[in-house]
Amino acid sequence: MDKEKYALGVDIGGTNIKLGIVSGTGKIIFNTLVPTNREGGPDEVMSQLKKGIKETISQNELNIVGIGIGAAGSVSSKKGTVSYPPNIPGWDVINVVDIIKNEFNLPIFIDNDANAAAIGEMLYGAGKEFNSFALVTLGTGVGGGLILNRKIFHGDFGAAGEIGHTSIDYNGRLCNCGSKGCVEAYVGNHYLMDIVKEELPKHRDSEILKLIDNNTDLLTPKIINGAAINGDEYALFIIERVGFYVGSALSSVSNLLDIDSFIIGGGVSAFGQPLLISIKRTLEDKVLKTIKHRIKVFPAQLKNEAGIVGSSSLVFYNL
Amino acid sequence: MDKEKYALGVDIGGTNIKLGIVSGTGKIIFNTLVPTNREGGPDEVMSQLKKGIKETISQNELNIVGIGIGAAGSVSSKKGTVSYPPNIPGWDVINVVDIIKNEFNLPIFIDNDANAAAIGEMLYGAGKEFNSFALVTLGTGVGGGLILNRKIFHGDFGAAGEIGHTSIDYNGRLCNCGSKGCVEAYVGNHYLMDIVKEELPKHRDSEILKLIDNNTDLLTPKIINGAAINGDEYALFIIERVGFYVGSALSSVSNLLDIDSFIIGGGVSAFGQPLLISIKRTLEDKVLKTIKHRIKVFPAQLKNEAGIVGSSSLVFYNL
Repeated sequence: MDKEKYALGVDIGGTNIKLGIVSGTGKIIFNTLVPTNREGGPDEVMSQLKKGIKETISQNELNIVGIGIGAAGSVSSKKGTVSYPPNIPGWDVINVVDIIKNEFNLPIFIDNDANAAAIGEMLYGAGKEFNSFALVTLGTGVGGGLILNRKIFHGDFGAAGEIGHTSIDYNGRLCNCGSKGCVEAYVGNHYLMDIVKEELPKHRDSEILKLIDNNTDLLTPKIINGAAINGDEYALFIIERVGFYVGSALSSVSNLLDIDSFIIGGGVSAFGQPLLISIKRTLEDKVLKTIKHRIKVFPAQLKNEAGIVGSSSLVFYNL
Repeated sequence: MDKEKYALGVDIGGTNIKLGIVSGTGKIIFNTLVPTNREGGPDEVMSQLKKGIKETISQNELNIVGIGIGAAGSVSSKKGTVSYPPNIPGWDVINVVDIIKNEFNLPIFIDNDANAAAIGEMLYGAGKEFNSFALVTLGTGVGGGLILNRKIFHGDFGAAGEIGHTSIDYNGRLCNCGSKGCVEAYVGNHYLMDIVKEELPKHRDSEILKLIDNNTDLLTPKIINGAAINGDEYALFIIERVGFYVGSALSSVSNLLDIDSFIIGGGVSAFGQPLLISIKRTLEDKVLKTIKHRIKVFPAQLKNEAGIVGSSSLVFYNL
């Protein structure tokens, strides 16, 4: 009898490097994390990565068949490179796969973290039944992964899926990327908090102000969600508007790719049902009639574990 | 020696049914057209189609290996159906391939006209060298065809490629589709003429007014182009703005699909170089930095013959 197969999943984040061992059915057997030593520079992060992998393998006597790595930024899964991750300063272009390969005698796969999460949702989560779907991660940035015909779509240079830089207003809010009206410039965590900070003085009765004791530096999506759960009108309006912006961007994605299924993950998706309902309603309002009746919007099923499970899923997806 | 292979291409348009025999290198050997009897209803159009094909085959003693059909509207190339073509009233859902198959003992392929044009450009035109590109047809509507990895991308239900319904402003101009800010609502022929009619009173010195003898019913893209060629400032502004709107929509397409190459066809593309330059500049301004230096914008090479050559290319693409 074959020994059960496991994958080692690594999520390289700006705050933590998360590592885990995951079964072929997406179950986490073991997990750990190392605070990312960003100050040490990319070389230090790479040696943390190697050390973490080594220890994870040696602590678990399991049949590990491959290593899957997810990272933010521009990742070439063909070449194995991670370029300019926004959360690790000083990192330009590093061939992570080449470096790891020299240390471990295992097949190694790498992808953008949103693509890894999309593959994880396809294999183990909310995307099991869909032939094609888009995963949208709402966090500091707005990331995306496109599953077309049960395959991740990378594009010619591996940069596909940048749903966050779908513009919803050619003359709209300035985005960090230099363009205008990118949906990320409306609903990305920092942008959204900036908008709310600006608007709060007009909503003196909002429970949000009480929850943060009038200190707008304490504002988080969680606070807004807390107020919304208590029925605060302005908080509910914020969530509905986030859904409207996201739905507006996704309607273009839907029309362009004939995609009717969307999976929403990331921290901001903690807004829950009111957010999902608003996204769905906006999509139904805006997409072409041929797609309208097919629209499906689901929450991501891999939540906190999306990083590790998503990364590990690269192994089972590719092997 | 094998006899040279030819394809019969048919373009079902609202004005004419165009038929032609095309070589494997995209050369038109024979072509003809029948004015579409729209008043006769879809049955009459279908019998015109059958008669046209029959006559084209019998008039040419050539080794025809298949029939390729292009049609406007929602086309399922899998099922063979054409649904609700916007230019033929009364036509709901007709399985064109089944009907034609019964009459002719040849493989038959069908696709949306923009997809057929994209395949034609890939095999014989401006897209020969590109691994992936988007074809955009600027006419009454704004159509699109997506070539990803040298394959036409249909999406799950065959509706992919609706670049015209990429919204550039969530609160923008009302589109016929019911949504707001679709790029078609800015640059589709009728919409564009409406915008220019509204603005013309503010441009009393524009040569456009002279060319149409102050009768705005005579306004066409050709007139605007004529004025632009003579250096008319307002006409040049119109063309540049069309490019800005199109480029704005395409920047979202580019970021989403990591596509850097765009081929522009259709009647409105007669605006020529000033239009292409404006589209390219807008794209370079708006796309992510990783794509910016790769942006390429070319005119379609199949011009008037795009219908016949595009349709016939379905045969050589699929066989």
